[in-house]
Amino acid sequence: MNAIERAGKELSRLPGIGPKTALRLVYHLLKADPARIAQLTGALTDLADRVRPCERCGNYSDSDLCDVCSNPRRDHTTVCVVEEAYEVGAIERTGQYPGVYHVLGGKLSPLDGVGPESLRIAGLRTRVAEEGVREVILATNASMEGEATAVYLESILRNVQSLRVTRLARGIPVGSDLEYVDGTTIAEALLGRREM
Amino acid sequence: MNAIERAGKELSRLPGIGPKTALRLVYHLLKADPARIAQLTGALTDLADRVRPCERCGNYSDSDLCDVCSNPRRDHTTVCVVEEAYEVGAIERTGQYPGVYHVLGGKLSPLDGVGPESLRIAGLRTRVAEEGVREVILATNASMEGEATAVYLESILRNVQSLRVTRLARGIPVGSDLEYVDGTTIAEALLGRREM
Repeated sequence: MNAIERAGKELSRLPGIGPKTALRLVYHLLKADPARIAQLTGALTDLADRVRPCERCGNYSDSDLCDVCSNPRRDHTTVCVVEEAYEVGAIERTGQYPGVYHVLGGKLSPLDGVGPESLRIAGLRTRVAEEGVREVILATNASMEGEATAVYLESILRNVQSLRVTRLARGIPVGSDLEYVDGTTIAEALLGRREM
Repeated sequence: MNAIERAGKELSRLPGIGPKTALRLVYHLLKADPARIAQLTGALTDLADRVRPCERCGNYSDSDLCDVCSNPRRDHTTVCVVEEAYEVGAIERTGQYPGVYHVLGGKLSPLDGVGPESLRIAGLRTRVAEEGVREVILATNASMEGEATAVYLESILRNVQSLRVTRLARGIPVGSDLEYVDGTTIAEALLGRREM
């Protein structure tokens, strides 16, 4: 395999990049300023060398504690539990969440061999026990497995004294036509209806 | 900018990869085996260090002469002229072309400041003059600029003694319905019709 084929093969192992797209990227890089490849490989090497999970919440970070955990102005008594680190960004971008996070690193999925011990659940229990947490918001996905993970977490946190365990609201997405929203979602939105 | 943002920014400079896709790739790499990033950066560094244009035809290669130019079983009297190196692969994959190539490195595009001197045209003239070339197949794209480039090349090669200058046939793509083929293509296919 020559250098072009090898670079194409490595790029095509990335999600959403097929062999043809990978080759197109390789030829793009070959035609671009050679410094571009050095910048790209430098950034990726830094990624491998410097980024690791935050010791407290599991979010990716350049340092031992992530930007959120090390920020004294965040509300450390409210912990939002997400499946994956990239979901932290989705919530951060709303600018509406003052609390901190806990990244599970996946969801319960017995068929794939992912049980509670494969996720960052022991760490969540420790934080709840030791950090004066008053509310845990379960923000796992609205999929079957995300739902099952939320139910499991609720069951192990249920008996912690003076801890609220909440779940993100279900309802009609902003901008949606009722006509195109599935029945289960409409039913959930009816159940969760609020005074105007 | 932290390491994650920088890797995302570098990846999003690749064609067809927006900021969201780039971040998805970054998180994919972070979650994958760390050796994956090393393999990817190794392959890209090799690409930058080892791959350069073939001295004769301009195709990318690991060595001074590319695999095609250094192959004595290829027909070195027939030269297929393409705009970009990746188009060599498209023709090679047909397995139907015994000749060699010449990569222009672009197409004439006066509005973008690309004149004949920006392309590998002097090298083509030298090859035709010195290598006993008997046929030049103009395989520039069927776009306006590709067509203009072919017309220009024909004009400078027209007076070379005993040299055939040909152009890839225009016609109905295999598998197409006439209904969906544009009129210009049908007209070209009529002009270029062949005995069955």
